Amino acid sequence: MSEAFTLYSYFRSSAAYRVRIALNLKGIKADYRAVHLLKDGGQQHAPSYAQLNPQEIVPTVVHDGYAIGQSLAIMEYLDEVKPEPPLLPKDPAGRARARQLAYAVACDIHPINNLRVLNYLRKPLGHDDDEVIAWMTHWIDLGLGAIETMLTSSAATGRFCHGDTPTLADICLIPQMANARRGRTNLDLFPTLKRIEAACFELPAFADAAPGKQPDAE
Amino acid sequence: MSEAFTLYSYFRSSAAYRVRIALNLKGIKADYRAVHLLKDGGQQHAPSYAQLNPQEIVPTVVHDGYAIGQSLAIMEYLDEVKPEPPLLPKDPAGRARARQLAYAVACDIHPINNLRVLNYLRKPLGHDDDEVIAWMTHWIDLGLGAIETMLTSSAATGRFCHGDTPTLADICLIPQMANARRGRTNLDLFPTLKRIEAACFELPAFADAAPGKQPDAE
Repeated sequence: MSEAFTLYSYFRSSAAYRVRIALNLKGIKADYRAVHLLKDGGQQHAPSYAQLNPQEIVPTVVHDGYAIGQSLAIMEYLDEVKPEPPLLPKDPAGRARARQLAYAVACDIHPINNLRVLNYLRKPLGHDDDEVIAWMTHWIDLGLGAIETMLTSSAATGRFCHGDTPTLADICLIPQMANARRGRTNLDLFPTLKRIEAACFELPAFADAAPGKQPDAE
Repeated sequence: MSEAFTLYSYFRSSAAYRVRIALNLKGIKADYRAVHLLKDGGQQHAPSYAQLNPQEIVPTVVHDGYAIGQSLAIMEYLDEVKPEPPLLPKDPAGRARARQLAYAVACDIHPINNLRVLNYLRKPLGHDDDEVIAWMTHWIDLGLGAIETMLTSSAATGRFCHGDTPTLADICLIPQMANARRGRTNLDLFPTLKRIEAACFELPAFADAAPGKQPDAE
């Protein structure tokens, strides 16, 4: 396996944040290329980037000549080409649980609240900041509430979402909690999530992946 | 492995449709339990179902005493406990590509257009049918357009999205195309998707999973 990985990222993107955590956990030092989602009409729409990622979204990882988009596809790939430390448990039921928690964020919270969706609510739909934040908070509260229940109702929950090592579930959860703080979500309602977040931030892999620590942070 | 699988499904849910296709491809006859998303204030909110799936959404698969939610977590699980026929290619780059295509639907099209999101646009946001359909069509056109480009720009595309056997990519695509027909999307703009859809429907696994063929179809 080639050790050369390139990461196309935007510091504030929570999908890119996930991949930054995963790369750090794997001990992979990727070449960081900033794609500014707001400058130049959105650098993700530049033809050179669109060729790498026809969805024109971040992140993209380039490795061994392949450009891979979609944070979860990238993380599953990393887990296959560099299995240690694993990002998923070994047993199929445990893997399903970690993935279910990850998708509960990645499919059912984040896509409804990302920049392009919020922009559409503003224009053409004409909603003001208050309504946009109410929208965001509604979906985040609903989603994090379900995840809190999934975590408190299972003996498989440990120091992290699944057992005592971080998995895809934690990697998706942490950036989503950062997003939650931009709305009106009361995170005190989710004590298990807060406990797990604190455990994650004791690990440099999570702390170093935070938006404020990226080369393109503003 | 126990051969007893139970599927909680709603005939019109495209996430449930994916899992029905995957079960059929694997040759698994699951016990079908209908969860009507509109009757009784939404049967997915009944306490007995919420205990199986705290997100209160379909589908859920119960197997070997575990209740698994999230269609993609279920399908990865099926591929692990019953590997033949595989739902993903063998090579990591191919697996990443099939997953990327699957997530392009499952993360970036479907969640923005599912029933609960469209309901929120209607109430409290007050949009009429025309605006709701414009919303739906916007995200579907954008998403399917990117997927068409991903497919036409890669030599890995075959009879199906990746090579000549169906993968998670096709399984996610086909229900999304059915949804597209409920809006104003012009599918003629996506000839590769239409060709692949036709190839899929030659397989009973896809045809038999269609909403109209389910026990709870209306």
